[in-house]
Amino acid sequence: MSHPSLNHIGIAVRRIEEALPVYQRLLPGAHVEIEDVPDMKVRVAKIHLANACLELIEPLPGESAITKFLEKKGEGIHHVCLEVPDVDAATAALQAQGATPVYPSSRAGSGGMRVNFLSPKDTKGVLFELNSRTPQGR
Amino acid sequence: MSHPSLNHIGIAVRRIEEALPVYQRLLPGAHVEIEDVPDMKVRVAKIHLANACLELIEPLPGESAITKFLEKKGEGIHHVCLEVPDVDAATAALQAQGATPVYPSSRAGSGGMRVNFLSPKDTKGVLFELNSRTPQGR
Repeated sequence: MSHPSLNHIGIAVRRIEEALPVYQRLLPGAHVEIEDVPDMKVRVAKIHLANACLELIEPLPGESAITKFLEKKGEGIHHVCLEVPDVDAATAALQAQGATPVYPSSRAGSGGMRVNFLSPKDTKGVLFELNSRTPQGR
Repeated sequence: MSHPSLNHIGIAVRRIEEALPVYQRLLPGAHVEIEDVPDMKVRVAKIHLANACLELIEPLPGESAITKFLEKKGEGIHHVCLEVPDVDAATAALQAQGATPVYPSSRAGSGGMRVNFLSPKDTKGVLFELNSRTPQGR
């Protein structure tokens, strides 16, 4: 995985309706996009910075990784997302280096991206998401 | 604070000597800089991505915010740093919007940057650092 870029930081929140105005006061004028991601059972609000995004993540009904995180740790930083050319190739390469993918293959994320995650147990407590815009071979 | 960029993500680790090889396996070939930051009682290892850095943070001897974080939460993501043109001006503007600065004025961070932090109690559990390269009026 050579020279990925930092795509976004995922921040777990109970309600985007409450959290977004807080961030909009901190980052006035930032472009915001809101989108449901049914595969992950979440709604996200992407707040665009100059070179990356903050992504507020609210759970949709049903149990999900985000509901468990909120119950256990409360609101706060949930993951770091690195953008790579091909999420499945990068995941396979990292698995060969000792990382543990959360899903057997990539799933549909926000903005039409394909995504996977790496277990934080191999990365000093950090949950990494990998995403890519144009998965090769699809 | 109009359109800041994401400068780095701070990751608390017990020992850079152990954590850095883990990250170097994930990010082979990434440029790394190691630096002591005495004002913060930490040593940092900056791992350069294409558009931002991951910053591993190890406590130097003595009690610091990082020793407390590691005791309470263990290794993991500690803060998100936004780069602004003038950290003291941005901090004052955000304080007027309801944020609570951690320090009364900016301090010396890594890489010659001036830095301050905002309390996570006002930002949905996220500790934000603000930094700037060339503080105005200094």
